[in-house]
Amino acid sequence: MVVKGTILSGMRPTGRLHLGHQSVLDNWVGLQDEYNCFFMVADWHALTTGWEESKEIGQNTLEMVADWLATGLDPNKSAIFRQSRILQHAELHLMFSMVTPLSWLERVPTYKDQIQKLGEIGKDINTYGFLGYPLLQAADILLYKANAVPVGEDQLPHIELTREVARRFNHLFKPVFPEPQGIVKKEVAVLPGIDGAKMSKSYHNYISIGADPEEIKKNVNLMITDPARIRKTDPGNPEVCVVHKFHRIYNPDLLESIEEACRGGRIGCVACKKQLAGSLEQHSAGVRERRQEILSKPGYIEEVLRDGEERARVVAGKTMEEVREAIFGGQA
Amino acid sequence: MVVKGTILSGMRPTGRLHLGHQSVLDNWVGLQDEYNCFFMVADWHALTTGWEESKEIGQNTLEMVADWLATGLDPNKSAIFRQSRILQHAELHLMFSMVTPLSWLERVPTYKDQIQKLGEIGKDINTYGFLGYPLLQAADILLYKANAVPVGEDQLPHIELTREVARRFNHLFKPVFPEPQGIVKKEVAVLPGIDGAKMSKSYHNYISIGADPEEIKKNVNLMITDPARIRKTDPGNPEVCVVHKFHRIYNPDLLESIEEACRGGRIGCVACKKQLAGSLEQHSAGVRERRQEILSKPGYIEEVLRDGEERARVVAGKTMEEVREAIFGGQA
Ligand code: SF4
Ligand code: SF4
Repeated sequence: MVVKGTILSGMRPTGRLHLGHQSVLDNWVGLQDEYNCFFMVADWHALTTGWEESKEIGQNTLEMVADWLATGLDPNKSAIFRQSRILQHAELHLMFSMVTPLSWLERVPTYKDQIQKLGEIGKDINTYGFLGYPLLQAADILLYKANAVPVGEDQLPHIELTREVARRFNHLFKPVFPEPQGIVKKEVAVLPGIDGAKMSKSYHNYISIGADPEEIKKNVNLMITDPARIRKTDPGNPEVCVVHKFHRIYNPDLLESIEEACRGGRIGCVACKKQLAGSLEQHSAGVRERRQEILSKPGYIEEVLRDGEERARVVAGKTMEEVREAIFGGQA
Repeated sequence: MVVKGTILSGMRPTGRLHLGHQSVLDNWVGLQDEYNCFFMVADWHALTTGWEESKEIGQNTLEMVADWLATGLDPNKSAIFRQSRILQHAELHLMFSMVTPLSWLERVPTYKDQIQKLGEIGKDINTYGFLGYPLLQAADILLYKANAVPVGEDQLPHIELTREVARRFNHLFKPVFPEPQGIVKKEVAVLPGIDGAKMSKSYHNYISIGADPEEIKKNVNLMITDPARIRKTDPGNPEVCVVHKFHRIYNPDLLESIEEACRGGRIGCVACKKQLAGSLEQHSAGVRERRQEILSKPGYIEEVLRDGEERARVVAGKTMEEVREAIFGGQA
């Protein structure tokens, strides 16, 4: 295997993942064979907007990592670890803070957006830590000298900040850091929630990764279909139907025939949903099984994390030695 | 010995100290017998405004700690350590940043003052780290659960911020931290520089702690005296004389007779300076000797620091366990 470089990516520990996360996870799984990968449980980041629910972070971490492993993240290939266990993230963040103009952080596009958005639902996150959040991300990435970061379009400004911080450090002190590239995946069709809105835990409109047949059936039955269709012989419009959006991803081969049958009034929504539920169940079964196996081994996830943390700590420690040498010289 | 509590105090490593620092140091030396003391070389803080000179921090640390020890800081009583060696300072700073409103930091009185002052001499310190500097101080203090902090009047707002941060953390999560008190020393007469301005390294108007006779003689000779006095029989005005301000501190018993002789034109400035130089030399000799002894033992200061760091790390580690338990619960 020719390693293309190092990747750092992470997720906040929000508990069990849902199908909306699937494409990110599938992407990670694929990257493991081409890159030296670090996958991080961003538990400190979870505090920036959610310190009220901090007590749930531990359990949520276990649930999420179970999903990671069940989906195919391989602890033999990748280092899987908790951010909060590698103190060097905080140390590098602090070093960067000394040379990062306030204005760089104030102008990150997501900053004011998010404060406003969360302010509207009565959540005040106008803290020092929230302002510094993209700088902590920069530290996360550069601590492992990652040169590639899988991101969504909206995350590109954060990668740009990371590059700027790396450049500034290298220029002021010594060239220590690469300037990482964001790898933007071609936009896959976005899976909506069962109500047609964005799939999200907080909207309660999601289907879990590795969901059991009950959860799948219940949620598929609740999916919004073409509201103009009363009888199953009425011609339907798949474009406005959530079930159809799921078929597009989980039954690409049958898509055309389903669309035609719907438009021609030759298939009822009940049957159409049944078919989707079957496909989802099939898709889900393997992950569910692996998930159960993982959770049945007491202490296994903790072991995976500790092992990943050991490996992450070695790399982080080496980088920080270089950082200290670059800043303080041979003396310190 | 009845211990009154725990003290944290520190100085930025600026190299050899001067007589303007003496009263702070003397205060520290006295506190060692009443408190459990942590004395910190604030090398991370030195970066907030001085990363351009970061390469000098190592050497400056050795010089400063030599002065600390020569003046009477006792590594058997107190933990003497470098901030940058205890990563938990950065960790606690990061935790606090998550729950500290930006406005608390923006309204610290020294913040805008200093940006402006340093801006006037062409130094741009409008960084994220400079804004967070009082929060790093709060972490420094609370990491050791210090309940007392010796400070100057102008530092009181920083202590107030520390208390607010402690209260907020205790309220949001669990009571972990004390609310430290600032111990303001009664204002001792301030020693001016040899030109009458504030004694400061950057003004080159200082006399080092433990200065040798040459340095003392040279600098005392340069001291500004009453400019209206031409001949030694002219009546002088001690109020406008720098030499007199030094006599007040180093020759309190002779002060009255010196004042009278000056006013009566019965002592010349040359003689008066000679007397001062003699007193300073006497005062300086002990410190100078101890300083030389300390510097003659190779590796001794490094050993003192490593030992202090081990002790500091144990206390810091214990506090951070409590902090993590308070935030994440038993799980993490
Ligand atoms: S038949 Fe299928 S695609 Fe057509 S509206 Fe019903 S559920 Fe949707
Ligand atoms: S005699 Fe002494 S106190 Fe008076 S002006 Fe001269 S140096 Fe100052």
